[in-house]
Amino acid sequence: MEADPLSENYGEVVIQDLQSKHISGRRLTEIRFFNETLKDKTVLIRGKIQTSRCVGKNSRFLVLKEKVSSIQCVLTVEDNLSPQMVKFATSLSKEFNVEIEGIVSVPDYPIKRATQNVELQVTKIYCFSEALPNKKKALQPAKQIPHVNPDKCLNFRVLDVCTPANQQMFRIQCQVDSEFMQYLLSEGFLGIDTPKVIATSQTDGPPACLAQSPQLHKQMAICWGFGSVFEIGSVFRAEKSKKLRYLCECIGLDLEMEIKEHYSDVMDVVEGLFVSMFDSLNEKCKKELEAIGNQYPFKPLKYLKKTPRLTFEEGVQMLKEDGVKVNPLRDLNKQLKRKLGKLVLEKYGTEFCILHRYPTAIRPFYTMPSHDNPTYSNSFDVFIRGEEIISGGQRVHDLELLITRAESCGINLKSIEAYIDAFRYGTPPLGGFGVGFEKVVMLFCGLNNIRETSLCSPNPQRITP
Amino acid sequence: MEADPLSENYGEVVIQDLQSKHISGRRLTEIRFFNETLKDKTVLIRGKIQTSRCVGKNSRFLVLKEKVSSIQCVLTVEDNLSPQMVKFATSLSKEFNVEIEGIVSVPDYPIKRATQNVELQVTKIYCFSEALPNKKKALQPAKQIPHVNPDKCLNFRVLDVCTPANQQMFRIQCQVDSEFMQYLLSEGFLGIDTPKVIATSQTDGPPACLAQSPQLHKQMAICWGFGSVFEIGSVFRAEKSKKLRYLCECIGLDLEMEIKEHYSDVMDVVEGLFVSMFDSLNEKCKKELEAIGNQYPFKPLKYLKKTPRLTFEEGVQMLKEDGVKVNPLRDLNKQLKRKLGKLVLEKYGTEFCILHRYPTAIRPFYTMPSHDNPTYSNSFDVFIRGEEIISGGQRVHDLELLITRAESCGINLKSIEAYIDAFRYGTPPLGGFGVGFEKVVMLFCGLNNIRETSLCSPNPQRITP
Repeated sequence: MEADPLSENYGEVVIQDLQSKHISGRRLTEIRFFNETLKDKTVLIRGKIQTSRCVGKNSRFLVLKEKVSSIQCVLTVEDNLSPQMVKFATSLSKEFNVEIEGIVSVPDYPIKRATQNVELQVTKIYCFSEALPNKKKALQPAKQIPHVNPDKCLNFRVLDVCTPANQQMFRIQCQVDSEFMQYLLSEGFLGIDTPKVIATSQTDGPPACLAQSPQLHKQMAICWGFGSVFEIGSVFRAEKSKKLRYLCECIGLDLEMEIKEHYSDVMDVVEGLFVSMFDSLNEKCKKELEAIGNQYPFKPLKYLKKTPRLTFEEGVQMLKEDGVKVNPLRDLNKQLKRKLGKLVLEKYGTEFCILHRYPTAIRPFYTMPSHDNPTYSNSFDVFIRGEEIISGGQRVHDLELLITRAESCGINLKSIEAYIDAFRYGTPPLGGFGVGFEKVVMLFCGLNNIRETSLCSPNPQRITP
Repeated sequence: MEADPLSENYGEVVIQDLQSKHISGRRLTEIRFFNETLKDKTVLIRGKIQTSRCVGKNSRFLVLKEKVSSIQCVLTVEDNLSPQMVKFATSLSKEFNVEIEGIVSVPDYPIKRATQNVELQVTKIYCFSEALPNKKKALQPAKQIPHVNPDKCLNFRVLDVCTPANQQMFRIQCQVDSEFMQYLLSEGFLGIDTPKVIATSQTDGPPACLAQSPQLHKQMAICWGFGSVFEIGSVFRAEKSKKLRYLCECIGLDLEMEIKEHYSDVMDVVEGLFVSMFDSLNEKCKKELEAIGNQYPFKPLKYLKKTPRLTFEEGVQMLKEDGVKVNPLRDLNKQLKRKLGKLVLEKYGTEFCILHRYPTAIRPFYTMPSHDNPTYSNSFDVFIRGEEIISGGQRVHDLELLITRAESCGINLKSIEAYIDAFRYGTPPLGGFGVGFEKVVMLFCGLNNIRETSLCSPNPQRITP
């Protein structure tokens, strides 16, 4: 082919030009901002090639994606656009990073393959980062991949994580995080950070371990006069489980607050926070939820403005009336919880409900017993789609009772000395709850595998990626 | 003393009444909301006794605090207030938790001992949680305690943390956290959570360790198409240092982003983010900063809307011109950094500045070398009051160059396989930075001891509280 007088309009960018050589001041437009108002404007964009196809003899259509947005870019041989340039564009494979200059046009046909409803008539195209050839299934359109082995997905996480559903999952998570923080800040809660390497409660074994939750420290923060606190932070489990519903490392959303009168104060916060969060997800994350639903079909979560609060005894009664055998003082197993979730859905029309006044024997030592019957306690669990997601309640604030309870539960008092000491200087009644961040997203989106909601999901069998 | 017909108006609350006995619907008013508009209203408050003093024969003044607010409560013997009730109030010690019903009054004298400018004429008073007798120094007014041994402060953290300066420190931190998140969300960054238990890079030793930073994972997130990400999360250091400027566990504020043209893109974010954060702290946290200044006097941070950016070579030159001996290719030690900080303050009038284009030899393997001279790199450090606080730069996005750089730095490629693999599928130029959360607060407030800014500050010598 003869030398192209228009050869400056396309080509490979050499590494030296990508080492911060100069500041030209030219502006890139993000793909998500493209719409009809930019018609006839000359713009500069960057993105990864998502699809590339030939249209007729002289045209090439590239779809460029940036984060979760994409735009169709058209190259047609004409005066200022050489056949060599179209050939160059044709040589670029999927996932290559390119920079394109072009003029925005509004086609009179609907664009199906991209998120933005305008096209770019390409004037210049440069490739600045190639991808190695790959034929991994994970890059195929979403609906073809549900049966890939989860472990393989993690081996090729770089590819797996690029599917629209997975990209959007992390946007939902970020929204959950932000809503949790904003809601609690607006309610006067203070964000704190408790230590993750803490003293162990066992007498044998190493002296320190990773915190399974900020439980004792967040209670100490109330003793320390902070009034009401929350924490968004890493929590660790050493469970050897490979189960799809456990992560060894996840993000805990925790709060603790003074109780003014009744542990319903805490349940009020649960209800206010989560109903507001669900509303906000449904309102602000429509696109994200749609993309997830395309790969993992799910029905929107059913919830009410007023969340039903059943006592544990009432829950047991509902199960009994349905012909199920239940021990009224033992915790419900997974099957019973799901069964109860169904019964509540039938009776109240909601998949989000609170079960409270649990038997004291199945709750931690720091749980406050009921005022009228020490067999029961001022505690609660919260369920989404029949899965327990939140555990909380009123804590024992009285020093003597706390020591008695700890001893009767076989806790080594020496190992929780700093915690016990915090209650020596006068503590108001207090309560709180904890919830697994990834589990909120998993259950809101009706997913079966919690690993989908974790960027890397380390577990005892794998520590990469 | 004879039986008091008004004995129902005061007394000790028994534990049974604090076990969520009933929901009365009565409302407590938070002390921070008290002002003249509540005049003559009957209200209910809760708080801890901060001071208690006798005024004349028949009156007792209690100052009640809740979080960082306080109000003066007055009991004077009269028709509806028995001498026995005043005697009961007199029996209550500092730190006891009480509930008071009273009528708001606006005194014609200024109230010096409380934050709110109205008083409460007490009608009922109940004590619901006593403090054990304590005579610890830490509960004395702020100015008397700066010389308490830091280790002792941690032993009695429950008392130490209650000083107004320490309470406010954590409010400043929460604000830093929230500003960091809000600013980056508004700029289109996505919040992510990377794993904390990761594979080690050493060939000997255990296979997993705690992450010192999300460095490699946040770069992988850019390879994975997230565009621009941030993380607020725990980072761990195993240093045995007892130095006042190191924490073994702290909160890292990290971000990573695509670079469109030059690593100044990243420095632009540093500048925009921190100038906005400083503005916001000065504007929204006046009270908090004042309380900290009362205990630890400091001068407000000097910073400019436009942050000076000096090259490393220019910094070295400034030091040389001042008569200091400097090796132009070695990192500046603590003394040189402080010296340079002083020179920059004299020349530019700011204590916040950026030093960039560091020698490649003193930066990590993933740092992008300069386009014109591989001795220097596309990297930067940021300084507050002569202390390095942020480290960042452009990363190598080119697979071949990355492998060459890692090998030449003696990195075991096998140990970073997942990271290297992430670059096989086409990555745009990228860069970012990391900053220690506690250090921002420490240096903004001109503190000398980073432990003041950490709730519990665990280190190899102590894992409690």
